[in-house]
Amino acid sequence: MTHHEQPSDRLDTLIRSVLPADRAAMSAARERQGQLTKPPGALGLLEDLSVRLAGVFGTPRPHPAGSAVIVAAGDHGVVAEGVSAFPPEVTPAMVANFLAVTPAGPGGAAVNAIARTVGTRVYVADVGVNADLPDHPALVQAKVRRGTRNLRAESALTRDEVTRAVLAGADLARVAVQDGADLIVPGEMGIGNTTPAAAVTARMLGLDARDVTGRGTGVDDATLTHKAGVVTDALARGASSAQDPLGVMADLGGLELAFMLGVMLQAAALRRAVVLDGFVEGSAALVGVALAPNLADYLFPAGVCAERGHAAQLAHLQLTPMFDLGLRLGEGTGGVLAVPLLLSAAATLRDMQTFAEAGVPGSETQDRS
Amino acid sequence: MTHHEQPSDRLDTLIRSVLPADRAAMSAARERQGQLTKPPGALGLLEDLSVRLAGVFGTPRPHPAGSAVIVAAGDHGVVAEGVSAFPPEVTPAMVANFLAVTPAGPGGAAVNAIARTVGTRVYVADVGVNADLPDHPALVQAKVRRGTRNLRAESALTRDEVTRAVLAGADLARVAVQDGADLIVPGEMGIGNTTPAAAVTARMLGLDARDVTGRGTGVDDATLTHKAGVVTDALARGASSAQDPLGVMADLGGLELAFMLGVMLQAAALRRAVVLDGFVEGSAALVGVALAPNLADYLFPAGVCAERGHAAQLAHLQLTPMFDLGLRLGEGTGGVLAVPLLLSAAATLRDMQTFAEAGVPGSETQDRS
Repeated sequence: MTHHEQPSDRLDTLIRSVLPADRAAMSAARERQGQLTKPPGALGLLEDLSVRLAGVFGTPRPHPAGSAVIVAAGDHGVVAEGVSAFPPEVTPAMVANFLAVTPAGPGGAAVNAIARTVGTRVYVADVGVNADLPDHPALVQAKVRRGTRNLRAESALTRDEVTRAVLAGADLARVAVQDGADLIVPGEMGIGNTTPAAAVTARMLGLDARDVTGRGTGVDDATLTHKAGVVTDALARGASSAQDPLGVMADLGGLELAFMLGVMLQAAALRRAVVLDGFVEGSAALVGVALAPNLADYLFPAGVCAERGHAAQLAHLQLTPMFDLGLRLGEGTGGVLAVPLLLSAAATLRDMQTFAEAGVPGSETQDRS
Repeated sequence: MTHHEQPSDRLDTLIRSVLPADRAAMSAARERQGQLTKPPGALGLLEDLSVRLAGVFGTPRPHPAGSAVIVAAGDHGVVAEGVSAFPPEVTPAMVANFLAVTPAGPGGAAVNAIARTVGTRVYVADVGVNADLPDHPALVQAKVRRGTRNLRAESALTRDEVTRAVLAGADLARVAVQDGADLIVPGEMGIGNTTPAAAVTARMLGLDARDVTGRGTGVDDATLTHKAGVVTDALARGASSAQDPLGVMADLGGLELAFMLGVMLQAAALRRAVVLDGFVEGSAALVGVALAPNLADYLFPAGVCAERGHAAQLAHLQLTPMFDLGLRLGEGTGGVLAVPLLLSAAATLRDMQTFAEAGVPGSETQDRS
């Protein structure tokens, strides 16, 4: 792919470059799992995850090592409707927090603390913050516009704006892979962004606004009802169709959602695993698998997010999450927490000895398992 | 505590040395949690875990770093009853596997692969394997006897044997702490050991054998029914009482169970966190909290184990596990997988900036949260 192409052509090329996972490697991995020194199935979901990682990395002994979380920040015109418990000024302030110098190291937010603990590299991008952020060596400047339009009243983005945000995400994913990332966590910061996520999810899955609208950062009952009404109004206003996923992203989405979509597509095209955090990430993933069905092979949901509507996303993606810690923060925090679990799943498949190698007697009932 | 004391006196001293967690540090931690740059409660269970870690380590900014898994191996006379899908020769063969030289590093079992991935040190002890194991620099020789007696027919252990196994576990926990472990995972290997674990759990909780007897390494329906009958017979034979927890461990337990009990008590006495793996570990924990109720302050269950009866243990301990991966392997594997989650929980409490430090505006509805 060259950068002389038109953006829409680049995006088409990217979507077509997401190939299926390696089924032969998965078959060999499943065969190997059955010979490792443990009762069949005793590692539960880790066994399935290890087989899927074999498919992503194209070998029955996958060895993912590096990991990255890419936190995309954007603002939302719909905050004018009073859908969030926090003021929009929090978005640029949290970007500064992601980059802050602290006694513990760079970054004073939850995603920084967790990423430092598990050894994941943090990338921060401004794709649509409604403020002029000062230059910072660790901030990727990728602003498409200062916040989206109010999706209750008009289309949040143009198709061209979506395309540019997606390609910016793809560009940063390529950098992360060049820096050594095998597991990539798309993350986000954007006050109000569970509202576009709910709208995108409702449209993509054909669900009612109330089934997918949750409390976000913690709105009260009255605001939750109002927020669902805002989503209902947006769905009634916009004529976008699930058959045109980029149109849905423009009509109802957000810049950090589109950026994460680009991260996911590019990571998958480069045969890296994508670790899905929560509900906002999930809404971008729904658009992604509609554009490139093979993307689902590369997605690994971290945990059940406390936000209403996340379960419907996972059911549609037919993917099983790893934990239920009641997280509802975003930033990619849940995805980073899942990184050691995925590395461990790969390590068991790759590094455990077989019964034969270890000289361990097998099950007396193995033929029945 | 001196080693000139009688073993039973040493054990009494150990039990009395498990003090409550630091409530003042927990209060200060809870206060700090409310000021960190995230919506209140948005880190879900991680917030509760971080407060409990503050109590264990006696500071509102806990900094656990090192971790250890201590795998205790023992055999069980009750395997003569045909309660396991694997032959007892697997126990010594798996000990050899824990110590094997492999291309990936020391140890070819699941616990080795996972511990290497998350940076946890592995200790292996023979407390009751029914074989003479060759000397190995990484094998702790702590054999009390070659396997337990058949608990269906007679008391599995004497009280003195239990005491010696508990103290051997305490000794190795002290070594692990001296080596730098802040989080300690008791683990086990012993073909047949879900049978004594079920018997101990049933007696300690006053439950029926069928409610706590599971498939272990994967027995079929007929063997499961038979296994529950063996546990029922053992409960009918033995007259031990939940009011005498060490008596229950002697009557119905196992050497690696007693060893893990010692690991837990000593880790807690040294104010370190104990990460609980699955059902066999849980049975030792039930005995532990009956002996030293403060021990519960130091226990952090990793995941829901697929073995029937684990949920009853967790309900009794009033502790919430971190994940449900369908694990049923033992070895401490689930506990090691939880280490990065606990380190991350502590890191968020310790290293995140407060709203004031970061200059982030608070919630508009924070007074209502």
